[in-house]
Amino acid sequence: MTTRFDQSPSADGLWTGLRGLDGQPCAITVADGRIVWTGAPDAVPAAHVSLPRHEGGGALVTPGLVDCHTHLVYGGQRANEFAMRLAGASYEEVAKAGGGIVSSVRATREASEDSLFASASARLQSLLAEGVCAIEIKSGYGLSLEHERKQLRVARRLGEAHGVTVRTTFLGAHALPPEYAGRSQDYIDLVCREMLPALHAEGLVDAVDVFCERIAFTLAETEQVFQAAQALGIPVKLHAEQLSDMGGAALAARYGALSCDHIEHLSQAGIDAMAAAGTVAVLLPGAYYTLRDTQLPPIAALRAAGVPMAVSTDHNPGTSPALSLLLMANMACTLFRLTVPEAIAGITTHAARALGLQDTHGTLVAGRPANFVLWKLQDAAELAYWFGQRPVRCVVRQGRIAEGAL
Amino acid sequence: MTTRFDQSPSADGLWTGLRGLDGQPCAITVADGRIVWTGAPDAVPAAHVSLPRHEGGGALVTPGLVDCHTHLVYGGQRANEFAMRLAGASYEEVAKAGGGIVSSVRATREASEDSLFASASARLQSLLAEGVCAIEIKSGYGLSLEHERKQLRVARRLGEAHGVTVRTTFLGAHALPPEYAGRSQDYIDLVCREMLPALHAEGLVDAVDVFCERIAFTLAETEQVFQAAQALGIPVKLHAEQLSDMGGAALAARYGALSCDHIEHLSQAGIDAMAAAGTVAVLLPGAYYTLRDTQLPPIAALRAAGVPMAVSTDHNPGTSPALSLLLMANMACTLFRLTVPEAIAGITTHAARALGLQDTHGTLVAGRPANFVLWKLQDAAELAYWFGQRPVRCVVRQGRIAEGAL
Ligand SMILES: [Zn+2]
Ligand SMILES: [Zn+2]
Repeated sequence: MTTRFDQSPSADGLWTGLRGLDGQPCAITVADGRIVWTGAPDAVPAAHVSLPRHEGGGALVTPGLVDCHTHLVYGGQRANEFAMRLAGASYEEVAKAGGGIVSSVRATREASEDSLFASASARLQSLLAEGVCAIEIKSGYGLSLEHERKQLRVARRLGEAHGVTVRTTFLGAHALPPEYAGRSQDYIDLVCREMLPALHAEGLVDAVDVFCERIAFTLAETEQVFQAAQALGIPVKLHAEQLSDMGGAALAARYGALSCDHIEHLSQAGIDAMAAAGTVAVLLPGAYYTLRDTQLPPIAALRAAGVPMAVSTDHNPGTSPALSLLLMANMACTLFRLTVPEAIAGITTHAARALGLQDTHGTLVAGRPANFVLWKLQDAAELAYWFGQRPVRCVVRQGRIAEGAL
Repeated sequence: MTTRFDQSPSADGLWTGLRGLDGQPCAITVADGRIVWTGAPDAVPAAHVSLPRHEGGGALVTPGLVDCHTHLVYGGQRANEFAMRLAGASYEEVAKAGGGIVSSVRATREASEDSLFASASARLQSLLAEGVCAIEIKSGYGLSLEHERKQLRVARRLGEAHGVTVRTTFLGAHALPPEYAGRSQDYIDLVCREMLPALHAEGLVDAVDVFCERIAFTLAETEQVFQAAQALGIPVKLHAEQLSDMGGAALAARYGALSCDHIEHLSQAGIDAMAAAGTVAVLLPGAYYTLRDTQLPPIAALRAAGVPMAVSTDHNPGTSPALSLLLMANMACTLFRLTVPEAIAGITTHAARALGLQDTHGTLVAGRPANFVLWKLQDAAELAYWFGQRPVRCVVRQGRIAEGAL
């Protein structure tokens, strides 16, 4: 894997024969792995004309995609649980057969770092092949210092091996580990006083997240984690209002959260707080779809309030075994009624912002690392229209032609 | 394209290190492009042991997939209409901008046979890369002898060029062409007396289909088409009870239909008639999803009656721009609550039966053309569990290793 990315050809040179999201012809100059110029084909700087040429033949070009909410690293998978449920098994029967999140926790704890790396690599490659150039990866299936560390180390290694920007998120407060049953406060203390400081000191934590929900952690517990993060200067995000309105979004906004994610039950007060704080709303239609949810996130109110909306896979083995960000764009349009430009911004610009990467990812601007995708498509709307397709022609990731070819 | 399939390596030899849908180890011998033996690895006939080996390394193997309901050949696409709808355009505004099925009819009529071939080839390759070895392709966007012929000729050419089994279905009675507005009976007469006999004489019609619905053709018009097909000895199928219960399924069953498709509003009488006639129920979750339908097909009653259920993309530019049959299996489970084995049978065995291909496709049996898929998966349930993934390792199609490699 490592060698594969390292051996990918350099993207340096002049990229011509491209069309932007606005349908207009454009060109891009890449030097030393960075975009140094972009503009109309008839305005190419004279000094760039003699550079090596990459001829796009009219291909649609977009910024590299950004998947801003994933639980990509875990042991095992839960296909058997999926099959059992469909065959009519009750929750109790699934639990008896070792199903549910505890099965992912157990499998993650039992797995070696290398085996977690191998299984997550295979999943990551699905996303990379479709044009993902930056991805968030959460911990949260280890639920102890040792095993959360293992997950986050794998996330870092994935970034290095595949030449993709990885943002790590510590989600120690994802679920109560079995050994802390009935001792939620003790576990949150452990998260705040031991796990987070240690992992932060090891450089493994780009952001901190909590699952704030009746079936997970309370608002007070969430705030305790946010305070610990704030004390260390780490940005926060929140799994908020997925199953009920807990007031999590307003709390997160008070802590300047990068994003609030899921938010099917978000209130107007939560929306207003997010708008004021500049917090991104991360929409996760894959989980909505898999859970056959019927409570739509308040799209019209988010739009009216000017809250930026991102769209992500929420890849995880229980509620969203999704491995296509374009499919999520289609689902965001079809299920949530996002417009096509909103869906495209949701997997590029706004997704980058949800990760604090707005200065390096998500838009095609001179001075940034070269991350862009050429598509076998005529029209930007086709990105969200087809589903189940792999319309990538080639992906330039961190200055290399990492997937496909011209 | 032609050369690509022709140049694919032969699959002849002994395939070992495979696991079947039941999880048990198995082996397959291919000779002259056909499966000549399959069984347990310790029962390989002595004469096969010295054959060239294809070592699967434990890969899951399934029959080649069968996509039994598509409208794959058409001019243009309708991404712009998709975008307009999401941006709030009314049906009238979309129609004024040239949207709706009439736009596909116009674009199909205007397209040359070669350009239809090129655009459908690109879409077909998405399906083939995922393991499809047999596919049904309908006409129905030409709506005149000349243009229906062009669509069906393209369908035949696709089969030859890509080495995939194509079953052509004449769907002249898909919609009333604009020039016949208000003259439905005249058009049906044309379909029955001129178009069908001519296309049948040219060897272009493997089956005949009708869109029987309030917005399309009546039960009486449907029966007229069925009688014309019956007189020529051509099997029939039906777009039935998608938007309302028209009684189409019972009619189709009386004509021994291969399949009734969509069937969200199918009645118990229709189910009983289908069960008695051995007619396959073709479920189309991609259209259900895209239309945000809420009327589920009567899965439990179909199951109880023993009606075989197939699952297909219904690929078309208006209501199902879907290009992944595995995604349809996932949607059949998630949205329609099929069990995993039902979903897998739905894209293999039962789909083959919906095309009258039950003696050559859809199961791994000695004596058949070699059509099978090796997957990068541990467990058969993963075929329906992940979504948006491309888990194919290699596809043996018509005796050649047509996609991927070992
Ligand atoms: Zn999540
Ligand atoms: Zn159809």
